[in-house]
Amino acid sequence: MTDKLIIFDTTLRDGEQSPGASMTRDEKLRIARQLERLKVDVIEAGFPAASHGDFEAVHTIASHIKDSVICGLARANDRDIARAAEAVAPAPRSRIHTFIATSALHMEKKLRMTPEQVLEQATQAVRFARNLCGDIEFSPEDGYRSDPDFLCRVIEAVIAEGATTINLPDTVGYAIPELYGHFIRQLRERIPNADKAIWSVHCHNDLGMAVANSLAGVKIGGARQVECTINGLGERAGNCSLEEVVMAVRTRRDYFGLDVGIDTTQIVPASRMVSQTTGFVVQPNKAVVGANAFAHASGIHQDGVLKARDTYEIMRAEDVGWAANKIVLGKLSGRNAFKQRLQELGVALESETEINAAFARFKDLADRKSEIFDEDIIALLGDESVTSIHEHHGFLSLSQRSETGERPHARVAFTIGDREVVAESHGNGPVDATLKAIESQIESGAEMLLYSVNAITSGSTESQGEVTVRLQLGGRVVNGVGADPDIVVASAKAYLSALNKLHTGGDRVAAQG
Amino acid sequence: MTDKLIIFDTTLRDGEQSPGASMTRDEKLRIARQLERLKVDVIEAGFPAASHGDFEAVHTIASHIKDSVICGLARANDRDIARAAEAVAPAPRSRIHTFIATSALHMEKKLRMTPEQVLEQATQAVRFARNLCGDIEFSPEDGYRSDPDFLCRVIEAVIAEGATTINLPDTVGYAIPELYGHFIRQLRERIPNADKAIWSVHCHNDLGMAVANSLAGVKIGGARQVECTINGLGERAGNCSLEEVVMAVRTRRDYFGLDVGIDTTQIVPASRMVSQTTGFVVQPNKAVVGANAFAHASGIHQDGVLKARDTYEIMRAEDVGWAANKIVLGKLSGRNAFKQRLQELGVALESETEINAAFARFKDLADRKSEIFDEDIIALLGDESVTSIHEHHGFLSLSQRSETGERPHARVAFTIGDREVVAESHGNGPVDATLKAIESQIESGAEMLLYSVNAITSGSTESQGEVTVRLQLGGRVVNGVGADPDIVVASAKAYLSALNKLHTGGDRVAAQG
Repeated sequence: MTDKLIIFDTTLRDGEQSPGASMTRDEKLRIARQLERLKVDVIEAGFPAASHGDFEAVHTIASHIKDSVICGLARANDRDIARAAEAVAPAPRSRIHTFIATSALHMEKKLRMTPEQVLEQATQAVRFARNLCGDIEFSPEDGYRSDPDFLCRVIEAVIAEGATTINLPDTVGYAIPELYGHFIRQLRERIPNADKAIWSVHCHNDLGMAVANSLAGVKIGGARQVECTINGLGERAGNCSLEEVVMAVRTRRDYFGLDVGIDTTQIVPASRMVSQTTGFVVQPNKAVVGANAFAHASGIHQDGVLKARDTYEIMRAEDVGWAANKIVLGKLSGRNAFKQRLQELGVALESETEINAAFARFKDLADRKSEIFDEDIIALLGDESVTSIHEHHGFLSLSQRSETGERPHARVAFTIGDREVVAESHGNGPVDATLKAIESQIESGAEMLLYSVNAITSGSTESQGEVTVRLQLGGRVVNGVGADPDIVVASAKAYLSALNKLHTGGDRVAAQG
Repeated sequence: MTDKLIIFDTTLRDGEQSPGASMTRDEKLRIARQLERLKVDVIEAGFPAASHGDFEAVHTIASHIKDSVICGLARANDRDIARAAEAVAPAPRSRIHTFIATSALHMEKKLRMTPEQVLEQATQAVRFARNLCGDIEFSPEDGYRSDPDFLCRVIEAVIAEGATTINLPDTVGYAIPELYGHFIRQLRERIPNADKAIWSVHCHNDLGMAVANSLAGVKIGGARQVECTINGLGERAGNCSLEEVVMAVRTRRDYFGLDVGIDTTQIVPASRMVSQTTGFVVQPNKAVVGANAFAHASGIHQDGVLKARDTYEIMRAEDVGWAANKIVLGKLSGRNAFKQRLQELGVALESETEINAAFARFKDLADRKSEIFDEDIIALLGDESVTSIHEHHGFLSLSQRSETGERPHARVAFTIGDREVVAESHGNGPVDATLKAIESQIESGAEMLLYSVNAITSGSTESQGEVTVRLQLGGRVVNGVGADPDIVVASAKAYLSALNKLHTGGDRVAAQG
């Protein structure tokens, strides 16, 4: 009999904290459904006390997801914990994850608390949480850089109060596999009630070792839960990648001897969904989910690979969900076929009105693009006309032209609230002219940090372009995404979508890194 | 006294083998110069016997680089080794790197040789190489999956023949840090003459552990050379990242106790140059060189970071070469200022004709774009008018328009050999119309695998768009890159550039993975 390794996905919490990766409630629910299909054991759905929007997102996910444990993050205080408990309450199985920093540096500089105060607050918080929920996870933030003696006292105390999972974060990505593994092992050996909790690892990738550190925490340290994100999304260099850690445990089962419950064929669809939703591209040479990760997926058949696949391949592309893009729908597909494909994709639209709007958008796209792929369907769900939320800025129409030797020109019609406006501008290129035209009316003053375009599906120049625009204004960073077969139209939509996020979003509390 | 860790960069050899990452001789020389500024100890410049172009590239680099050892790869046969020796001969310090597979799987399926034949060939190859060059590296390909007893015999024999570096590749990215470290340690303990050579690690990232494996090979195994690439470029999930392994050794000097000679402030410029040249994007959450790798670089100052930077940062952005984009030149900058900036960027153009062509291209750009950044200068160097090579397909002019409700249309003028042609087409968007127009005349039949656009510099909608187009035809994959303030023009240039590569490139021999 082997042990099971619990996969705890925090794409929607720690991943979303990455600057520009914030997602709407609907987007989060869509990803949560994909995580459920992936058979993730625990979904950390958000940080309910951070903002009203965060609370709503966690509550919605807790109301719809049945198979995974739904977890909410909370600082170690009663208000945060009560909000988290309320948000996760609808889930069949729920968890509260509370944390407080334990490193000297964080206690002194960030919390401005003494170690005794931190110990007291951690204990009280877990006691309070345990009365609200049977499944309590506790994290000593910056745990890996904390004094081991103090850490032993804190962890022993919170386990005594009923914490069921103890998570040891390497908050700043400073660990080395061997050291991190032995650090956890020693804590587990020293703490008398250590066996009353499941131990967990949470590693950041600042030195490129998040996966190896996590696995050393499992193999050497005896941890049985790994916290990770799809595509390694997360602040700075990101978190441990779910796809890498899962495939390492599966591929090297001879060494780890652990079971994981993940349906690996859902990995690539999950990666694409997270990348499309956040606008965070996956580099071609990313392990498991990068476009080049499997030699034959990029069309190259080396001599050696042809002679025997396992000369160069230790995993099979199909096992992680790489498959040729299938044309799923076309111009003649009806509403039922469309609705069925939405269901197969795990997309549950809230109302018939929304399905009708999505179908209308689909027919419009099918008129301009002969082959409709799953990725196109996911992209159109981000369109304003499909979400029933009325956006402040909406795209109406665009006309643009450029010619060598002349200044490119664009004319854009869009909405500002209920008002329709038309704006014109010249620019360095048609995209620049388009965004300048919009900006001439809105005058947001936002700074553009990033502009990128990716074809949604490969294999054809007829693919839709998906444009990501990252704007910064007054310390806030937002991503806007827009898709259209016309790259200039997609750019206008992405820019308006980013402006909408700047317009609606409010302040939120920063959580643990 | 501490040991030195030798940094062996193989961006131009193993990195370039990544499908679509092939580079021209001039591009390779530009990157080699940047690697020299980075103070890389050894530059593996290519695989001279693979093709005439590879030989030329290695020979050119060996003729220009003075500070780094220049290494050429060769299979374990006299012809390959003689070609490699000839190619690296001009370098003040040169190395020949020869390899042969030693795993049962590779010997049987790929080489179709017995172990005794492999042992004999390895020995003969090193003996032959040693007569041509004093610095010989030997790699048993797929070494980590080889029988240790057999490996010991091979390595002892090649050291006896004079191999000065023994490299242990994890060719398929199958290793685990602890296992890989002990594997090397045991080999070094068992082989009587092990101390006569420097031991080296070469890891692939298929399970996301290339950096940790390499460092375990160093710490546990006692290796003193790491083979790596900029941005972790390489086949499949790529190689060990130079930037991650170097910053791990620097940041955790308390643990490794090793010196590295790298000038880390050249890391980000090197990353950008490799990304721009190959069209392989770096994801935002990539350690060290990703746009989000440092919190404050993305404009976000978390509460904790403001209170004390080291609460969340273990490295400083400026130490790895992150700096605000500087406006380096503008419309009024003269030829001398431009030439000086080229020198500062380490770009050595071959002739005054090339400098004149580059300056003309720069003035043209400055007319359309008010601020010129270093990245713009690097981008324009890829332009055909600047390289003195006459390309088969050259861009002349473009006119395009799109309007909501009408089919986008483009008219493109370009060259096919000495002939000027004008082509028109409708399409789903202006880019599609442009590429269809070009294809209507050239009829390459190539399949498009990837289309992406990135703004060359952020902070302004006036940035140039840099378009990467990846085409596949008959099993070959090429990347074309084009830059212009007008994204449609950049797309046309990128497409023509990819077609040029398909037109000129020939077959080449596949090297070690």
